[in-house]
Amino acid sequence: MAKEPKLSLIPLGGQGEIGKNMMVVRFGENILLIDCGLMFPEEEMLGIDVVIPDIAYLLENKELVRGIVLTHGHEDHIGALPYVLRHLNVPVYGTKLTLGLLQGKLKEQNIRDVVLYTVKPRDSVQIGPFKVEFVRVSHSIPDAVAVAVHTPVGVILHTGDFKIDQTPVDGQVTDFHRLAQLGEEGILVLMSDSTNAERPGYTMSERVVGNTFDENFRQAKERIVITTFASNVHRLQQAIQVAFKHNRKVTVVGRSMINVINVANELGYMDIPDGLLIELEEANRLPRNKVVILTTGSQGEPMSALTRMALSDHRQVEILRGDTIIISATPIPGNEKLVARIIDQLFKQGARVIYESASDIHVSGHPSQEELKLMLNLARPKFFVPVHGEYRMLIKHSELARDVGIPAENIFIVENGQVLEFSRRSGRLTGRVTAGKVLVDGLGVGDVGNIVLRDRKLLSQDGILIVVVTINREKGLVVAGPDIVSRGFVYVRESEELIEEAKAKVKCVLDKCADRGISEWSSIKSQVRDTVGKFLYEKTRRRPMILPIIMEI
Amino acid sequence: MAKEPKLSLIPLGGQGEIGKNMMVVRFGENILLIDCGLMFPEEEMLGIDVVIPDIAYLLENKELVRGIVLTHGHEDHIGALPYVLRHLNVPVYGTKLTLGLLQGKLKEQNIRDVVLYTVKPRDSVQIGPFKVEFVRVSHSIPDAVAVAVHTPVGVILHTGDFKIDQTPVDGQVTDFHRLAQLGEEGILVLMSDSTNAERPGYTMSERVVGNTFDENFRQAKERIVITTFASNVHRLQQAIQVAFKHNRKVTVVGRSMINVINVANELGYMDIPDGLLIELEEANRLPRNKVVILTTGSQGEPMSALTRMALSDHRQVEILRGDTIIISATPIPGNEKLVARIIDQLFKQGARVIYESASDIHVSGHPSQEELKLMLNLARPKFFVPVHGEYRMLIKHSELARDVGIPAENIFIVENGQVLEFSRRSGRLTGRVTAGKVLVDGLGVGDVGNIVLRDRKLLSQDGILIVVVTINREKGLVVAGPDIVSRGFVYVRESEELIEEAKAKVKCVLDKCADRGISEWSSIKSQVRDTVGKFLYEKTRRRPMILPIIMEI
Repeated sequence: MAKEPKLSLIPLGGQGEIGKNMMVVRFGENILLIDCGLMFPEEEMLGIDVVIPDIAYLLENKELVRGIVLTHGHEDHIGALPYVLRHLNVPVYGTKLTLGLLQGKLKEQNIRDVVLYTVKPRDSVQIGPFKVEFVRVSHSIPDAVAVAVHTPVGVILHTGDFKIDQTPVDGQVTDFHRLAQLGEEGILVLMSDSTNAERPGYTMSERVVGNTFDENFRQAKERIVITTFASNVHRLQQAIQVAFKHNRKVTVVGRSMINVINVANELGYMDIPDGLLIELEEANRLPRNKVVILTTGSQGEPMSALTRMALSDHRQVEILRGDTIIISATPIPGNEKLVARIIDQLFKQGARVIYESASDIHVSGHPSQEELKLMLNLARPKFFVPVHGEYRMLIKHSELARDVGIPAENIFIVENGQVLEFSRRSGRLTGRVTAGKVLVDGLGVGDVGNIVLRDRKLLSQDGILIVVVTINREKGLVVAGPDIVSRGFVYVRESEELIEEAKAKVKCVLDKCADRGISEWSSIKSQVRDTVGKFLYEKTRRRPMILPIIMEI
Repeated sequence: MAKEPKLSLIPLGGQGEIGKNMMVVRFGENILLIDCGLMFPEEEMLGIDVVIPDIAYLLENKELVRGIVLTHGHEDHIGALPYVLRHLNVPVYGTKLTLGLLQGKLKEQNIRDVVLYTVKPRDSVQIGPFKVEFVRVSHSIPDAVAVAVHTPVGVILHTGDFKIDQTPVDGQVTDFHRLAQLGEEGILVLMSDSTNAERPGYTMSERVVGNTFDENFRQAKERIVITTFASNVHRLQQAIQVAFKHNRKVTVVGRSMINVINVANELGYMDIPDGLLIELEEANRLPRNKVVILTTGSQGEPMSALTRMALSDHRQVEILRGDTIIISATPIPGNEKLVARIIDQLFKQGARVIYESASDIHVSGHPSQEELKLMLNLARPKFFVPVHGEYRMLIKHSELARDVGIPAENIFIVENGQVLEFSRRSGRLTGRVTAGKVLVDGLGVGDVGNIVLRDRKLLSQDGILIVVVTINREKGLVVAGPDIVSRGFVYVRESEELIEEAKAKVKCVLDKCADRGISEWSSIKSQVRDTVGKFLYEKTRRRPMILPIIMEI
C-alpha cells in the first residue's frame, strides 16, 4: 500500500508580524493558499511603499498551486495579490465584497484574466484534494469568513480575522452553529487570529460606536467630520444612519473611502437612504449644522483629507470654531504621534475633537481573550497554531490555549517559512522553506535591498558630501577641482570656510598620492574618504557619506 | 507717582509640546527663568540629536536675566543648560540632586565657572525683585520642587512636574501644608503640569511597583533583568530593596544608569546595603537565581544594553530560557514599535517578559485629573495657565480648571513665545516674542535648518543620483563623462542598463545644448535634472535627488 501523502502548513507571512498574511496548506503535490496580504513598511524601510511576502516557495512549486482562498477584503489579506498573480495564474475564491474590492485593485494595476470564484458562507468548493468550506465570522469589514479545509488527514480550521460580535451592524452573527458542528465532528488543527491576544475580556460590539455617534450628534452645534478606516463599512453605515436620524446630509471626502462606499453600496452591503449622500460642493452650500463629512485620514496620514483640513490646507473644507471632529479609530502602532498632532491642530482651530479610546468612539475588529477562548472551546482542535500576530501575541494566545486544556506539546508557535507537518495523530516542525520580505518601491519589486536601505539611512542622518576631481591620466595631474558639493550636511552658505578647509585636505591627499606615485583610483578614493571624514567629524561630530568621484581625461 | 512695572509670563518652551520646558517670569527690567530643558527630536528631524529652545529673547535682554531656578533634574527641565549657559552667565538655583545631575552634564561639556546655589524645600531666595520659594512635590525623581515666585503684583506658583503620591518611596510627601498656606494667602497665577490631563482618576503610588517587583521576584527561577528610566531613583531604590529581601545581588549595566546611581548614592538619595551592588563580572560567576541586573534600554533604544541583550549581541550578558525580564516603563509616544520588537526578541529567547501596563509594573510620575483638581483647589489661583503639555492636554487641563470653578476668562492657553501680562486684577495676552526650536546635530547648534532637513528627507526616500561631466571651457567640448554615481536609489549592479540609458539621456541633453550654443552651466544643469528625473520616474516611479556636477578645465 502506498504511503499516504503528507499534510503540512507553511506560513509565508503573518507570523511574528501584523501584515502580509499568507498560509500554505500542502497535501502531497497540492498547494492551497489562504490569503495573500501586504504589510506597510517599518520605520527603517526608508522610501518603501509596501512590503509583500517572498513567494519563492510558491514559484518553485508553481504547478502544485491549486488556488487561493481569501478570508476578507483587508489589505493585509488581499493586498499582495496584484503582485503574486503576475507570477502565479491560479483561481481565487472569496466572498462577494472581498472580490469586489480585489477587482478594483487588479484593474488599477492592469491585471486581467484572473479567474475569480464568488462563494457564500456555508458554501463548499473542491480545490484539488481539498474540500474548502466557508464559515461566516464578524469582523470590521462585512463578508468575512473563516475557512475549513477538509483534507484526507483531517480538518484544518483557519479563523481569518474575526471577533465575536453578538449584535453586529448587519445582523450577520458569527456562525457558531457550523463552528460547533465542525468542533463536534473533530478538527485536527485550529489556526486563530492573535491580534488582540494581549487584551483581557471581550471586544465590544461595533454597535457601541453607533450609540456614541448618536450622543455626539445630539451635542454637535455645527458641522460634523467623522474619520475612520476607509474599509470599515459597518462604521460608515452607522454614521450614515445616525446622520439620517439627525436630519443631516452626508458627503464623502477621500478617494479610498469613496471607492469602498461605491463598491459596498453597489454590491448591496450598505443601506443608504435616497438623497442622503451629496457632493461636497452641495454640502458647502448647506447650513453647517446640516452636514456630516466622512473622510479618510484617521491615521494622521500626511497627504490625507483630514490632515489637510487640520492644517487649513484643504481646498474645499475649512474647519471652523464649534465644528465637531470625531476620530473613530485608534492609531496603528507607529502612528501615535501623527494622530496626536492632527488632534492638536484641530483643537487649535477651535474644534471639539472626540478622540479618546475611553470614549467608546472606536472598537477593535479582533477578538480579545475571552473570545479567543470561546473559539478554542468551540473548535476543540487536536492541534493549535496561533496566527496573525507579533511574537508576544502568539505567546499570549498559546497561553490561552493551554488555559482551556490544549496540551502544551500540541501547540506550535511557528515563524514564517517553518514547515509544520501533521498526521492524524501527531504534528511536528520538519524544516524551513524560503520566506521573507520583498520591498516594493515604486515600480521596483524586490530591487531595494539592504545596501540601498543602509545608504538611505546614512544619507538621512548626516547627508552626503561629494568630492569631484578631474585628472589627466597620462600626466597624472589634477586639471579640475577638487570641487565639493554637499546635500543634507550643513547649510553651505554658512559653512564656506569648512568646505574650503575640506578642499585643502583633499588637495593635500592628492599631492601626497602624486608624490608617492600612487595612481590607483580606489586607493586615492579611500584616502580622500578617510581624511575628509576624519576632518569633518572632528569639526562637526557628524559623519556624512563621503563620495569621491575621479574623472579621467 | 511712577507707574508700577508690569508682570509678565512668557513661555519659551514646553507649551504645545512635551519637552524643552522654559518659562520666563518678567517684572519690569528683571527676568527670572524657570527650567531650561531639551526635547528629543521628532521623527522628521532626521539626524538631529536634541532640540533646545530658541533663546533669542533672553539674549536680547541679557542684562535683565537675574537667575535660573530648576524644579527637578530631568532632561526636559535641565538638558538645555549646557547650551544656554555658554551665552548667559547667570546663577542657577536648584535642589541638591538636581544640581548634582546638572554638574555631571556641565563637566561633560566642559562648562565651568557657573554659579550654583543649592536650595532646600521651604527655602526662600531673593533673586532681583523676586522672592523665590521652593515647595516639595513628589515626582519620578527625588528632590523635585514647585516654585512660588513672590512678586510685587502677586504670587506665581509653578508646580514643575509633580504627582500626588500619598506613599512616596522616600517618605517625602508633597508639601500640602505650604501649598494650602499659599492658597490661603492668595495666588495670582497657577501654572500646572498638564502631561496626564487626559487621564481620569488618580495616578498610582510609586510604591505599587515595588509590590509588583516583589511578586515577580518570588516567581522568578533564574536571572532577573529590570529596565527602567535611568533617572528614576525611586524605582531603582525599590528594585534594590526587593533584591536584598530575596537574597539576590545587583549589578548595573548602562552608562547613564550607573551615573545616576553614583550621584544619587553619593548625595544620600539612595539606601544601598553594603556589598549588595557588585560588578557584572562577579555577577556572571554567581548562580543565575542570585542575580538582578538593572539596565537601560526601557525605550528600546537601538544601542542600549537591553536591546543588545535581546539581540544576543551583548558581550557580557546572555538571556537564557527561564530568565525574567521586567520592563518597568511605558513607551514614550513614538517608541512603541521599538519596545514591542525588543519584547518579541526576548520572548523568542525563551525569557518570561513582564511588560504590560496592566500589570502594575510601571506608574506615571505625573498627576491624573483628580490630582490636578486637588492642586487647583489647594492653590485657588485667580488666573490659571496650564503648562507642560501638548495642545490637547492644555485644553483638557483648562476644562478641569473650569470644573473646579475658575472662570473661563481667567484661564489662558498660551503657546511658546506668547506674552501674558498680569496686574493684580487682570491678565491678558499682549504680544509675542521670538520662540522656537533650535536643532542640535553633533557640534552644530542651529546650523541645520529646513533646507538641510528637507534634503535629508529627500535623500532618505529615494536616494541620490549624481551626474558628473568635465567640459573644456574654451572648446565647449565634453572631455570626460558623463558619469553617473548613485546611492540609495537602486542596487547598481542589477540596474546597469537603467544607468546606461540615463547616461545616454544626459549625452543627448549636452549635445542639444552644444548645438544651440547654450553654455550657461545653470541652464545645462537644470535641463539635465529635468530630463533624467523624468526618465527615471517613468522607469521606476521613484524620484531620487538628481545632482548634476559640471567640471571645467
